[in-house]
Amino acid sequence: MSRLVMKFGGTSVATVERIHNVARHVKREVDAGREVAVVVSAMAGKTNELVAWCKEAAPLCDQREYDAVVASGEQVTAGLLAMALQKAGVSARSWLGWQAPIYTNSTHGAARIESIDGSGIIEGFSRGEVAVIAGFQGVHRETGRITTLGRGGSDTSAVAIAAAIKAKRCDIYTDVDGVYTTDPRVVPKARRMDKIAFEEMLEMASLGAKVLQVRSVEVAMVHGVQTYVRSSFDDPENPGQGTLICNEEDIVEAQVVTGIAFSRDEAQITLRGVADKPGVAAAVFMPLAEAGINVDMIVQVVSEEGMTDMTFTVGTADYERAFAIIEKVKDAIGFASITGEKDVAKISAIGIGMRSHAGVAAEAFRALSQKGVNIRAITTSEIKFSVLIDEAYTELAVRTLHSLYGLDAA
Amino acid sequence: MSRLVMKFGGTSVATVERIHNVARHVKREVDAGREVAVVVSAMAGKTNELVAWCKEAAPLCDQREYDAVVASGEQVTAGLLAMALQKAGVSARSWLGWQAPIYTNSTHGAARIESIDGSGIIEGFSRGEVAVIAGFQGVHRETGRITTLGRGGSDTSAVAIAAAIKAKRCDIYTDVDGVYTTDPRVVPKARRMDKIAFEEMLEMASLGAKVLQVRSVEVAMVHGVQTYVRSSFDDPENPGQGTLICNEEDIVEAQVVTGIAFSRDEAQITLRGVADKPGVAAAVFMPLAEAGINVDMIVQVVSEEGMTDMTFTVGTADYERAFAIIEKVKDAIGFASITGEKDVAKISAIGIGMRSHAGVAAEAFRALSQKGVNIRAITTSEIKFSVLIDEAYTELAVRTLHSLYGLDAA
Repeated sequence: MSRLVMKFGGTSVATVERIHNVARHVKREVDAGREVAVVVSAMAGKTNELVAWCKEAAPLCDQREYDAVVASGEQVTAGLLAMALQKAGVSARSWLGWQAPIYTNSTHGAARIESIDGSGIIEGFSRGEVAVIAGFQGVHRETGRITTLGRGGSDTSAVAIAAAIKAKRCDIYTDVDGVYTTDPRVVPKARRMDKIAFEEMLEMASLGAKVLQVRSVEVAMVHGVQTYVRSSFDDPENPGQGTLICNEEDIVEAQVVTGIAFSRDEAQITLRGVADKPGVAAAVFMPLAEAGINVDMIVQVVSEEGMTDMTFTVGTADYERAFAIIEKVKDAIGFASITGEKDVAKISAIGIGMRSHAGVAAEAFRALSQKGVNIRAITTSEIKFSVLIDEAYTELAVRTLHSLYGLDAA
Repeated sequence: MSRLVMKFGGTSVATVERIHNVARHVKREVDAGREVAVVVSAMAGKTNELVAWCKEAAPLCDQREYDAVVASGEQVTAGLLAMALQKAGVSARSWLGWQAPIYTNSTHGAARIESIDGSGIIEGFSRGEVAVIAGFQGVHRETGRITTLGRGGSDTSAVAIAAAIKAKRCDIYTDVDGVYTTDPRVVPKARRMDKIAFEEMLEMASLGAKVLQVRSVEVAMVHGVQTYVRSSFDDPENPGQGTLICNEEDIVEAQVVTGIAFSRDEAQITLRGVADKPGVAAAVFMPLAEAGINVDMIVQVVSEEGMTDMTFTVGTADYERAFAIIEKVKDAIGFASITGEKDVAKISAIGIGMRSHAGVAAEAFRALSQKGVNIRAITTSEIKFSVLIDEAYTELAVRTLHSLYGLDAA
């Protein structure tokens, strides 16, 4: 009998009416003879309410207490879905993180799953029981305290559970019907992909596509869990297609570029006249790391003899802090001037095919310059390249690259 | 070092602002050198919201899932109060029912506490830590599933925890400042009692005083836990007095009648011309018991030779069902006529002193008849008597008895 994990996010379980709809999706799979574990998020809005209360209780709250409070959201959904399934004639029971148990490390608020004991869930299968598992949560083995995986962690729960119970597939139900070549709101000709390789999905998620959490793709890749992104708003009795995230080998016709991702949440800081000596990079980036600021693109260009210009990007929310920190350590670094720009965007093209195709990025630079898009910085890796541009050109650049690589729907 | 349990109900923790106020009450006791365990209910309104969702998910829902959903309310409050205490500089951690653990039987939705392992909580005391315990919930030892104690169960949690950790006292913070001789809304001259015996409180709670749950008083009595009812709306830095529920021996000046309770939630059914033969009572009351209908007062009067009239009361909500059931088994019982009345009230006088004073009830009957109050039925026990009257006379009767027994405030 084939085993399936189904995961439903917050908007899919936002009301009890929608939970009944989810129950119909689950019933379809049970009726098809599958052993099903369902992973659920909190009802949309509930986590925000709980987080707001925590902040009101203590602005710098104890993360262990935060986890106990916030994990209650998924607890509620799990119980309600188990009831809705029973009402639909499907045997079911809820499992909280500590009941399975799903063991995590002790990094409360952003814990990592260490191991999952799937034996109770599998025992339930032998009784014909659907397991409804509260996502996003676990328990620390030594302290016995509730942990949470951080925002969006339910995707990761689902994939990790699929690995633990050796499920054939993990279906992630969301409010879109799959992974698109780019955001359809920006490019109306964007196409849903039937398949995408783990590595590509990882880059897409990291570079701004919000359909799946990065961590969940990592776990799926490591454990080889076939992950299927599909819509929870489909007719439960007659659902449509989604996007399968799978091994590269399972994709017959690999394209050079699979998708275009973009992020407007970028800010650029440029230091001019930096002494090009050993240790200068550390002098710039250590203080930022210590302040918990993630630096993304880093570009260094030799300008004059012994001097370089250095450009890097941080998240928009960190821009002011990063700027102030660098100004404070100016003497330690030694630079002539500092400038910054918040209205920038990062456009990325992703494709496993790039590994074997030279000149993919060069085509892009030409196409963009022909449209008058100024490229502020470039970074490349094995299967993707990113360009930093003025934010105003975002849509133009995305559409240009989407067409360039033949991704437009017919 | 003296140990104290403090319990705060739903209205006392209805908002995060009020939770901060609760933290001030707790801090006062900690600053006074006490080891404190706090038991909290769900934020007012939350349990109702959760219960409504359960009903929407499945009208006849699985009680185990119901418990998992509903217990989340207290989980949230426990975490938030722990945070608020930490913010106030008081070391604290939350304990959920399964963490302590508080073991119960498997009667989901109305579970009874079987045992409490207080060792973790006491260990916390040795580190100077306040234990914030989610009330109303426990865990079943064999299945590891969350149980709830039923409505108002947090009072019972508090008293049981006080017994388990050998606390010197259990303070129940509520929205009134103690137990009154009767409802002050009906009798403005009602007085707060300084002390009341367990047995009296048990009768008061059973007979309609809503300040404490019956079950919690039973547990307090059995384990001899001194329970102090007081107001959470007092100034936390300068709180007022409440009512101590204690052993009879600890009350120096016992009064004959301590309090007057009343309940409008009564309906009367009278059968006339019932054959006075063995088994007739069973014929009447067994079908009601099977339908889950609680019968309260039962009065039987011999009317004619071999015939009796039988009067009993049920809760107003059960009246129609009870009436229909009795009509259906008319032939099996054998009676001439059935009549009923929903607009009746039960007035009770409670006092341990009645044990040693004869004629207490008789005085009441005379006083009520002098005021023109018709008594429809009477029941008496060792420390209380109750009269059933027309509901319209409730206030008059309560005030009459309150004055009669010298309970009016000066």
